[in-house]
Amino acid sequence: MNLAGFFGWPTRLNGSGPRTPSRAARRAILLCRNLLSERGEVSGTLLAAEALAAYQALDENSRAGFFDLLIEEFSPDSKQVLSAGDAYRADPSPENLARLQAAVESPREELFRRLNLAPGGTRILVELRGGLLRKLDLNPHWEPIVADLERLLIAWFNRGFLELRRIDWRTSALVLEKLIRYEAVHEIQGWNDLHRRLEVDRRCYAFFHPALPDEPIIFIEAALTHGMTDRVQPLLDPGSAVLPPESADFAMFYSITNCQEGLRGVPFGSFLIKQVVEDLGREFPRIRKFATVSPVPGFREWLAANPELAPLQVKLAQPLWWESERLSEELRQELIPLCARYLLHAKHRREPLDPVARFHLRNGARLERINWLGDISAIGMQRSAGIMVNYFYRLADLEKNHETYTRDYHIVAASEIESLAKRKTMRPAPGPNNKRLPA
Amino acid sequence: MNLAGFFGWPTRLNGSGPRTPSRAARRAILLCRNLLSERGEVSGTLLAAEALAAYQALDENSRAGFFDLLIEEFSPDSKQVLSAGDAYRADPSPENLARLQAAVESPREELFRRLNLAPGGTRILVELRGGLLRKLDLNPHWEPIVADLERLLIAWFNRGFLELRRIDWRTSALVLEKLIRYEAVHEIQGWNDLHRRLEVDRRCYAFFHPALPDEPIIFIEAALTHGMTDRVQPLLDPGSAVLPPESADFAMFYSITNCQEGLRGVPFGSFLIKQVVEDLGREFPRIRKFATVSPVPGFREWLAANPELAPLQVKLAQPLWWESERLSEELRQELIPLCARYLLHAKHRREPLDPVARFHLRNGARLERINWLGDISAIGMQRSAGIMVNYFYRLADLEKNHETYTRDYHIVAASEIESLAKRKTMRPAPGPNNKRLPA
Amino acid sequence: MNLAGFFGWPTRLNGSGPRTPSRAARRAILLCRNLLSERGEVSGTLLAAEALAAYQALDENSRAGFFDLLIEEFSPDSKQVLSAGDAYRADPSPENLARLQAAVESPREELFRRLNLAPGGTRILVELRGGLLRKLDLNPHWEPIVADLERLLIAWFNRGFLELRRIDWRTSALVLEKLIRYEAVHEIQGWNDLHRRLEVDRRCYAFFHPALPDEPIIFIEAALTHGMTDRVQPLLDPGSAVLPPESADFAMFYSITNCQEGLRGVPFGSFLIKQVVEDLGREFPRIRKFATVSPVPGFREWLAANPELAPLQVKLAQPLWWESERLSEELRQELIPLCARYLLHAKHRREPLDPVARFHLRNGARLERINWLGDISAIGMQRSAGIMVNYFYRLADLEKNHETYTRDYHIVAASEIESLAKRKTMRPAPGPNNKRLPA
Amino acid sequence: MNLAGFFGWPTRLNGSGPRTPSRAARRAILLCRNLLSERGEVSGTLLAAEALAAYQALDENSRAGFFDLLIEEFSPDSKQVLSAGDAYRADPSPENLARLQAAVESPREELFRRLNLAPGGTRILVELRGGLLRKLDLNPHWEPIVADLERLLIAWFNRGFLELRRIDWRTSALVLEKLIRYEAVHEIQGWNDLHRRLEVDRRCYAFFHPALPDEPIIFIEAALTHGMTDRVQPLLDPGSAVLPPESADFAMFYSITNCQEGLRGVPFGSFLIKQVVEDLGREFPRIRKFATVSPVPGFREWLAANPELAPLQVKLAQPLWWESERLSEELRQELIPLCARYLLHAKHRREPLDPVARFHLRNGARLERINWLGDISAIGMQRSAGIMVNYFYRLADLEKNHETYTRDYHIVAASEIESLAKRKTMRPAPGPNNKRLPA
Repeated sequence: MNLAGFFGWPTRLNGSGPRTPSRAARRAILLCRNLLSERGEVSGTLLAAEALAAYQALDENSRAGFFDLLIEEFSPDSKQVLSAGDAYRADPSPENLARLQAAVESPREELFRRLNLAPGGTRILVELRGGLLRKLDLNPHWEPIVADLERLLIAWFNRGFLELRRIDWRTSALVLEKLIRYEAVHEIQGWNDLHRRLEVDRRCYAFFHPALPDEPIIFIEAALTHGMTDRVQPLLDPGSAVLPPESADFAMFYSITNCQEGLRGVPFGSFLIKQVVEDLGREFPRIRKFATVSPVPGFREWLAANPELAPLQVKLAQPLWWESERLSEELRQELIPLCARYLLHAKHRREPLDPVARFHLRNGARLERINWLGDISAIGMQRSAGIMVNYFYRLADLEKNHETYTRDYHIVAASEIESLAKRKTMRPAPGPNNKRLPA
Repeated sequence: MNLAGFFGWPTRLNGSGPRTPSRAARRAILLCRNLLSERGEVSGTLLAAEALAAYQALDENSRAGFFDLLIEEFSPDSKQVLSAGDAYRADPSPENLARLQAAVESPREELFRRLNLAPGGTRILVELRGGLLRKLDLNPHWEPIVADLERLLIAWFNRGFLELRRIDWRTSALVLEKLIRYEAVHEIQGWNDLHRRLEVDRRCYAFFHPALPDEPIIFIEAALTHGMTDRVQPLLDPGSAVLPPESADFAMFYSITNCQEGLRGVPFGSFLIKQVVEDLGREFPRIRKFATVSPVPGFREWLAANPELAPLQVKLAQPLWWESERLSEELRQELIPLCARYLLHAKHRREPLDPVARFHLRNGARLERINWLGDISAIGMQRSAGIMVNYFYRLADLEKNHETYTRDYHIVAASEIESLAKRKTMRPAPGPNNKRLPA
Repeated sequence: MNLAGFFGWPTRLNGSGPRTPSRAARRAILLCRNLLSERGEVSGTLLAAEALAAYQALDENSRAGFFDLLIEEFSPDSKQVLSAGDAYRADPSPENLARLQAAVESPREELFRRLNLAPGGTRILVELRGGLLRKLDLNPHWEPIVADLERLLIAWFNRGFLELRRIDWRTSALVLEKLIRYEAVHEIQGWNDLHRRLEVDRRCYAFFHPALPDEPIIFIEAALTHGMTDRVQPLLDPGSAVLPPESADFAMFYSITNCQEGLRGVPFGSFLIKQVVEDLGREFPRIRKFATVSPVPGFREWLAANPELAPLQVKLAQPLWWESERLSEELRQELIPLCARYLLHAKHRREPLDPVARFHLRNGARLERINWLGDISAIGMQRSAGIMVNYFYRLADLEKNHETYTRDYHIVAASEIESLAKRKTMRPAPGPNNKRLPA
Repeated sequence: MNLAGFFGWPTRLNGSGPRTPSRAARRAILLCRNLLSERGEVSGTLLAAEALAAYQALDENSRAGFFDLLIEEFSPDSKQVLSAGDAYRADPSPENLARLQAAVESPREELFRRLNLAPGGTRILVELRGGLLRKLDLNPHWEPIVADLERLLIAWFNRGFLELRRIDWRTSALVLEKLIRYEAVHEIQGWNDLHRRLEVDRRCYAFFHPALPDEPIIFIEAALTHGMTDRVQPLLDPGSAVLPPESADFAMFYSITNCQEGLRGVPFGSFLIKQVVEDLGREFPRIRKFATVSPVPGFREWLAANPELAPLQVKLAQPLWWESERLSEELRQELIPLCARYLLHAKHRREPLDPVARFHLRNGARLERINWLGDISAIGMQRSAGIMVNYFYRLADLEKNHETYTRDYHIVAASEIESLAKRKTMRPAPGPNNKRLPA
């Protein structure tokens, strides 16, 4: 699962002092001003294209200046806000509310709506927001631009406008090469690897938006299997035998990737997974069970934050420990219960600390099984000592589980995991409010 | 030109007293509340479909109750608005602005966004707004619902998401029958009439939205002709000879119809006409001239509002006056200069009183020619004593004219029309601020 | 059912004497000669287009001359045929057979293959053959051209290349208007009538060929009903209520039309009806019964050819006899058994005299029921005194019935019809070899 | 250029004695017999699918037996041929000709037409013929099957039914991977290599047939360049810079591949190259020059067949001779004139011995230039000592050149090449009837 969007993004560049916008940045801003001041719309499309082209031609530095000016010049007018606020306070009528709504709306929103008139405008605006997000740490004052765009993008990328498409070997190479580039959970090693993931016993689906016809927004990969998979490597093996799909009884989701950083905050994942569950259920009436084989991305970080577990760290630091039968068995006995405890009791506010757990539990899935050495890739070892988890999607229970979860953050889990979490190991388990845990 | 959207819509039903929402209305509202309160989105699509179905099943009365409850229950919370306003007054920081923006946003907007998850949701929301607009006179308190939806629809129906499609005899009957139903300027008399309008010397284009694949949003009809047409009846004659399109030198726009009342306030017309001018120019390099043959919808109403013109009304009241050569000639001499004056000098605020004139002049077109007996249909006679006007679209001038117009409302007109407007007729011309004119 | 192809086509023009080909005809032939003599293919497409255009520009008379020249100049060379025949007689080796095959192949076949290179060539060649067929009576010497084209068209229009498309209200008006024009069984009265035939409780399917994308080749219409329909008028009523299709238990085929006279002899009908039975069975699992409501086109002609039945003819000659209860009942009692006898025992060679019966029985359907006053339209009365017949398509029996029929021409019929055929009426029934029957 | 189809195919397996058809072969033949004997067509599609499946399940040996039986059982009846021949001799009427035509037509043709009813039938029949061709050397008695299928395939794959599609990075991976597999002139080294060949300064087009939607029939690759390319390696370099296509003035065809061996004898190549020349000319008005950069596949074989040239062979046998400046220059001086002579004077019957030359000259191209070390790949060195040739396609001359060529096999060549061919080298040039040359 690529849940970077839920818990962290690439590191940010180092800070910078006050900037003087470059001549190019000022020219781009001038075009934006023209676009916005146009009382009618005769040249809307042309002007929008010109303004976007000017923006795209800016280098890194000029873009920063451009964003600074977007904040400076296209924010709501404070005086108007205050005066509309006064009027509303004096008489909270619908008319005065409407006036206040108009006063607080950022001119940037209208600017972005007009920029979207240009051919390809939507894609550029999504990328623009992606760029902002990557540098927001250093430029927190850009947040209002991010927020204005988020508001627009939530409207534009409403689920009702997205199209679910199956991706297979008939799909355009232009789209397929993007899967290779974007895949964020289990890297695609090239065209052969991709081809295996699109065979008849695999399924890949993506959401597309009409304005970005060749750009997947988010995609999910599933394997049709016998039984619930506990290890991801066999699924990923390009040389593995192809199973007749009609003989499968399980669909295992092993990867979900958000492709567009600029759409962070626009939620698609739960729509996608649920619709795919429904579609697969229709296509393969024999498949009545849906589950994930998911990473536990925060597990080792959490282990590391517990000083009492230092002896464990020593063992985990031994190279290729999992190839030593003895060491591996020792670690299994210690780590599996710890992982159960991590998943059930380590919290970020009231929700689980683990972002993948949060995602699936919120969707109404059940925490089903913890698998030892489920992902022995370098990244799998580094994230979670090779442990993978199955979350179980039972259509009939999703809504009930989801409500339980969203109401009181109760985690629905297999009883075996609950027992594991209670088992005594080397050290007392960290409680839900354990202050030593990272958040 | 159907510019109903710009100057008036069907009359409203008579008023009604305070209402008690029906049980069905309350049930629909309950579903909306559930949809909105869902903290996650597990059942979003299903709940949205259920809520929309409940709304659609309501009868006229129940809908009114439903709308009342939408106002009552889903408006911004006044206390929160005031408190966020106070905070902003104390410290007008971006954070406090964001809080205020959040506080003034109507929960209805989020409700409508979620209703849009349902299959067909967009169409139903557009119709819902259409229904509201038709009854707004009697229920002015529904205005905030109209405004919330307008804000959303302006985002969703951004020009960047619309697709221009040529409509011809290859188009689906499902779409074609809608042209017959919607056409609002020169009624389509059936399939034969429609077929003639789609022949090789005619062009019809419409905007479509991906979420409403079989619903034209707005469409325009043009005839490829020799010279600038002064009468519309020959264009509309289903039996007229078909001209080889490559021999034409003019494209005459004779009809433009907004199809979706619920999209009133979302501007498409000027985008459509300009893009069609560009597309036709590419397809037929010989066609370098584009003009309309347009009605003057407010002319007779304006005449009627001038008591000095009573003698004229007497003549116009004679049945079939246009078949009497003498009477027709008398009227021509009087009405043509009056029409010139009406178009140039009768105002609504600073713009022309005539809505069709406003539309084309704002687009940057030039008022080119006034045609006597250009439309002798019943409706043509009743609207404008049969007068039709040509507006001329010269690509090179559109932007300049548009800017002149939007800056100081200067009307670009052929010098002959300006002369006509100065000519002495039976009575002094009404000035721009003539109080007797209807607005 | 339009089975004109099986039992007769429009009457032919009167004969004409020897012709001298016009200059235009000779020019078209010259182009054909060039096209054929081209040793390579550099200008194939252009030359083909030119030759076809020259042919199309010919008037009726010139076309006749053109066809005469096609016979005269592009037939196999008799000497070569004889010499290749001699070689084969001396040594019937594969090589000599191949030589003989090459010698008997008409140069026209290669000519037509090359003409097909031109854009739209296939359509023109189909029409050309249609034109030939219409005048073949008067010009029997054109038969070899007809046969050459038939050989080619059978290859080109192989079922494997045809695409089955559902026709509904989403279909292009260009195609729909052709249904109105071509429908040959129950005339379509206009767009409203057509719309009713494409509602959700009706189905229309057609075969298309990739080279004629907008031309239906053959189409079939079905109604989804409760029970087996005995009357066609209620099915055709544009004002009839629309049945929820999922509640139907029968699919009644009420019309099948071959659209392209030029494809006479290329069999499509049985493919179409069987594929539609399969498709409907998949779409509506509840529909397990398929039948036709079919005319009996040869019945009255057969009655008229039996002098003993003269008294019947007198009754049938009374205007609107079916509105007189007494007369109608009298005729019913006499005609129903006669019709049973006609269908079971009147023969053309070893097959039924009735062409519609031949078609369905050959397909493996069962003669199920004879319906009194099933079609009271003028044409229905004139063809078969209003009688309609149901043929029953039971998937499980089709193959067995078909084999029985094609082996010994045994007719599978409901026992009631067999009883009826034995019933004594006014006169002894004509036996299978009854010489008085028309063939 | 892959002209294998014009001059040779992979070597054949060794011969085999008389065969007894296996049980499986006899079963497949039985199904074919049923399919053919079906007097009607009720089960045509099903039976066809069954028969094809039975054929496909046969192993190599059984297929041979199956083909033997196809010859034995499904050939024209010799007695009927003789008797129809006698009738025609007695009276060469059209009726008797038709009878003879029917008698000589192989029942296999009708069998193949019916097999084509099965889904995917066309593809299987094309492959079947490919398989036959590969083994024809050892089984020359199968020739009539090959010929029957050729007759059908020429009808089915008539140019009028083929669709030209541009292949680019938007094309389905399913099709693209076939380009990688089929490319027969300059091997595609993987997806990166392919991607470069589909960039904006490259063009790839293929013919497709509606019955084989994902199977290219033949494809051609072109590079848009400045000037006429003399070396193919820079064109093929995946790392080469991409040229803005609008700045190109030449289109260089560097590869054309027939993909379906089973379609050998069905000519597509000249249609493809000419249509691509037309399409590119329309898309890029600046490109007015079209040429190939082609191999000379028979050159070294021809050199080797001339014993007088033995000293040359010694030099050519030195490894990497082209990296020695002196040796390379020596060889250049000797080989270029010899190659000119080979192209102009070495003949197979009356046409050039070189198959690529035959192909382009027949199309009307001009032999333009001989390029030293134009293809230094292993295969290029082995075929033609690295020499490549440009053939020039001048639209205005194609037809004239083609006629000159096809009338008297006159070769249109640049005067420089004619001079080169006359130049004295180490030995007198072999004349056109030089018996020592291979044919």
